[in-house]
Amino acid sequence: MSIDDWRRKIDDIDRRLVELLNERSRCVIEIGRIKNASGEALYQPDRERQVLDAAARMNPGPLPDAAIRRLFERILDEARSVERTVMHSADSKKES
Amino acid sequence: MSIDDWRRKIDDIDRRLVELLNERSRCVIEIGRIKNASGEALYQPDRERQVLDAAARMNPGPLPDAAIRRLFERILDEARSVERTVMHSADSKKES
Repeated sequence: MSIDDWRRKIDDIDRRLVELLNERSRCVIEIGRIKNASGEALYQPDRERQVLDAAARMNPGPLPDAAIRRLFERILDEARSVERTVMHSADSKKES
Repeated sequence: MSIDDWRRKIDDIDRRLVELLNERSRCVIEIGRIKNASGEALYQPDRERQVLDAAARMNPGPLPDAAIRRLFERILDEARSVERTVMHSADSKKES
């Protein structure tokens, strides 16, 4: 396989990654809505640690566990930001 | 669906993300090997820009395009680091 062949394979993987990351953020938004309705804390460090540990534990490589942790830290950062946006817009609606 | 149900869905998505990220890094390693054999430059900023643009273009949301770009910047960082490790170990073998 040539570099171009491998890159086409990567492009296909990236398409699936974009889909999965968005699917994940839809779940995060639903959780944000439930937390918002029940008044539960948005930021739950135990759950975040659990997600990072699980990702590292199920990692078969060749990516090092530390790389998987860094990637999931970014995924969790973005999840937190999406959840915050949802709760903020829900709060604005309550106020108006 | 309860928070736990959504979290189980997220855990399943994370499993698939870990698989895809490793599958992607296997492709990157193969490209590294080809580049190493042909003496081609490891760091190709045009290709990186192309990957970031493609990811943002195919993003249907709810994640903002800026979030997708930040996530893929991290993915590319880790790819560069994996490629560097592979080329370094290939060079060590040549020297020994």
